[in-house]
Amino acid sequence: MTDLSLNIPDTGKPRVVVVGGGFGGLYTVKKLKRQGFQVVLFDKRNYHTFQPLLYQVSTAGLQPDSIVGPLRTIYHGYPDGHFRMVRILSVDPARNTVHTIAGDLRYDYLVISNGMKSNFFGNDNFRQFTLPVKSIPDALNLRSHIMQLFERAVMTSDPELLERIMTIVIVGAGPTGVETAGALSELRKYVLPKDYPNLDFSRMKIYVIEGLDRVLPPMSPASSARAHKDLERMGVEVRLNTFVSNYDGDILTFKNGETLRTATVVWSAGVMGDVIDGIPREWVERGRILTDRNCRAIGSSNIFAIGDVAMMKTDKYPKGHPGVAQPAIQMGKYVGKQLKDIHAGKAVPGFEYFDKGTLATIGRGKAVADLLGDKLHLGGRIAWYIWLFVHITYLISFRNRILVLANWWWNFWTYDKGNRLIIRPYILKNDPVGQEVAEADVED
Amino acid sequence: MTDLSLNIPDTGKPRVVVVGGGFGGLYTVKKLKRQGFQVVLFDKRNYHTFQPLLYQVSTAGLQPDSIVGPLRTIYHGYPDGHFRMVRILSVDPARNTVHTIAGDLRYDYLVISNGMKSNFFGNDNFRQFTLPVKSIPDALNLRSHIMQLFERAVMTSDPELLERIMTIVIVGAGPTGVETAGALSELRKYVLPKDYPNLDFSRMKIYVIEGLDRVLPPMSPASSARAHKDLERMGVEVRLNTFVSNYDGDILTFKNGETLRTATVVWSAGVMGDVIDGIPREWVERGRILTDRNCRAIGSSNIFAIGDVAMMKTDKYPKGHPGVAQPAIQMGKYVGKQLKDIHAGKAVPGFEYFDKGTLATIGRGKAVADLLGDKLHLGGRIAWYIWLFVHITYLISFRNRILVLANWWWNFWTYDKGNRLIIRPYILKNDPVGQEVAEADVED
Repeated sequence: MTDLSLNIPDTGKPRVVVVGGGFGGLYTVKKLKRQGFQVVLFDKRNYHTFQPLLYQVSTAGLQPDSIVGPLRTIYHGYPDGHFRMVRILSVDPARNTVHTIAGDLRYDYLVISNGMKSNFFGNDNFRQFTLPVKSIPDALNLRSHIMQLFERAVMTSDPELLERIMTIVIVGAGPTGVETAGALSELRKYVLPKDYPNLDFSRMKIYVIEGLDRVLPPMSPASSARAHKDLERMGVEVRLNTFVSNYDGDILTFKNGETLRTATVVWSAGVMGDVIDGIPREWVERGRILTDRNCRAIGSSNIFAIGDVAMMKTDKYPKGHPGVAQPAIQMGKYVGKQLKDIHAGKAVPGFEYFDKGTLATIGRGKAVADLLGDKLHLGGRIAWYIWLFVHITYLISFRNRILVLANWWWNFWTYDKGNRLIIRPYILKNDPVGQEVAEADVED
Repeated sequence: MTDLSLNIPDTGKPRVVVVGGGFGGLYTVKKLKRQGFQVVLFDKRNYHTFQPLLYQVSTAGLQPDSIVGPLRTIYHGYPDGHFRMVRILSVDPARNTVHTIAGDLRYDYLVISNGMKSNFFGNDNFRQFTLPVKSIPDALNLRSHIMQLFERAVMTSDPELLERIMTIVIVGAGPTGVETAGALSELRKYVLPKDYPNLDFSRMKIYVIEGLDRVLPPMSPASSARAHKDLERMGVEVRLNTFVSNYDGDILTFKNGETLRTATVVWSAGVMGDVIDGIPREWVERGRILTDRNCRAIGSSNIFAIGDVAMMKTDKYPKGHPGVAQPAIQMGKYVGKQLKDIHAGKAVPGFEYFDKGTLATIGRGKAVADLLGDKLHLGGRIAWYIWLFVHITYLISFRNRILVLANWWWNFWTYDKGNRLIIRPYILKNDPVGQEVAEADVED
């Protein structure tokens, strides 16, 4: 079984190759429909992930299937649209070619939207022992790990082991870190005590570690302060201006020499652009591809970079746009819409980011919102309703909206989170119970 | 991290140990509430699986989370109820003790309800290369495998490889085999052609192989005939009186020497009781534990066996009860209800199985039903409505009912099945694409 080729037909139309089916790639492809191009999308997964809700999958609030959409769906009724589930190995800008394990493909235009990967700052221990929340498998690993923790806790009398299990550390106080901490705090308050009446959850500690001087650094100081207060009210211990230097699966070491024993370090500390091999070094700054106002890579005439992996410096965003969904969506729409004129050699207006606002939720009735170009800062229940409305609206597909609403409705009224099954063998390191879980999973 | 003990407190109450949280174990535990026992449940998973709908998880119709329930939920507000997520290694009937990796536990009563495991008839190739549908990880493996097949098919021009990929064989025409075949046939008709417009699905073959002389052997001949006709109308090729002798991941060999090249063999051919080590050989017949009419293991005074793993011979069921949900549920309720009287030394009535009927669905508006003690045989739309109603009713938890109904409603009106994500790295053997999927899954 080795015959392997990309099998993209030559239809004579100019070919646009899109790398990555995240927000940027998805909206690029959608906009390119019926524009006279052949459109080829590459992704290593067969689905688009609605990343803003990943943390709810990892904390048992949602099922993975309800926040993803099969990528092939966007091509239904699409003339000359193609999807291939392979990863790009490298790109050769001089020869307008991408390389994959299934062969090479020439492009007329290349749109790079392969997003970010976790940044472990070169520390292999962080890579090996911490739990990131960047993908569906990540989120299911974290969920399985957390549920296994407490199943393990009821089977020990060792106070030291119990303390390690009952201590959860989240490194990074960006939206993912803060939202994960809030959701864990709600599990501790409403769900876990019912499941484990013999465990003392007043001894469960949730830490959020942040290197900067406030939580939610991309948001306004007012929202940071509000979120910080909400977290503390929910019993989350926030440590600012604090850096971690190592973690060996047991002891987390801070830069100042302090240590903390914990079985769980969630890694939401940093991300870096996932720059494809072959992109010239001089196009890249801090792991992101520099672009002009047309989203075109500096130095190229036919390669575009959008979303998290792109660095478009403007007066308002001298360090590039924030690495969240909205810039990726808007850049994707922009490239998809302008490509026809660019292909025809026409002048096109530059990309303008419209900041619709920034939202983060901390818990039931608790959220923060920066709206109207950062002029309006809301907190509490009203921000929470806005958060709910916006996330339901942006979910891909009507089906997912129904499923997510049904889950949220259930979670809200019952104070329960029903998606607690352990389906991935994420094991506690060197622990016989974890080993057994892993074996059972492989076995049947 | 090695301190490991079961930590079951001694509360002075007689202790009932229940092994396995399937239908039998679940209903036993529920009925034992407030009967004056300490109840300890063991399972290697932390959730109960609604097995009759597993095939819909493997064919992208349902999410795994919506057909399972966390086992700890049954203990909410339960006096002296305990769950431990470990497997039983062995039992010592002479010393009334079960052994686990977390230590030993004495019992006053032992209820064995650990169900069936796939029977590969001693052929390690079947174990290694076929895909069973007995558990949630199984179902997700099969789903990921099927979705990967077609992603692979679009990347080859080799007609032989394409034929292998486009041939799916289901071994065993019991309810799971028939329902899986029907669901695959609907994927072929309604879903896959939209996702893969360049593949010719008239070349996709679905086989059902059965050793006996009709499909659905546990049902009435009328229902078998009807189901057979439905399957053929849906383009499923049924081969009766046919046995498989080997499969190497590529070539499936039949006992008569014929062969079939296929990348997918679904194994629903047979099951066998998962008899725990330490149960005396003389208690066991054909992999099941012989019991008297009180569900008590022959030769024991305090060990009960219920559900699939039990063999209670009666005039009506000289070979034991059928290995489906209803006998397990009824035996579980029976043992849970009678144990108090048994403990008090009172005489209790024998178990009587009330056959509510048997159902199987083949596709949209297609099902068969044997009702009223096998006096009424229904097919088509009416049987399908009964099937829908019964399965929704028996689902554990109101939440799951809502989620399953929402999914079914969506699938029915859109002719779509939305749960198509590949989240388990089930790889095509020796194939570079499969290898890449597996790596991506581990990586992030």
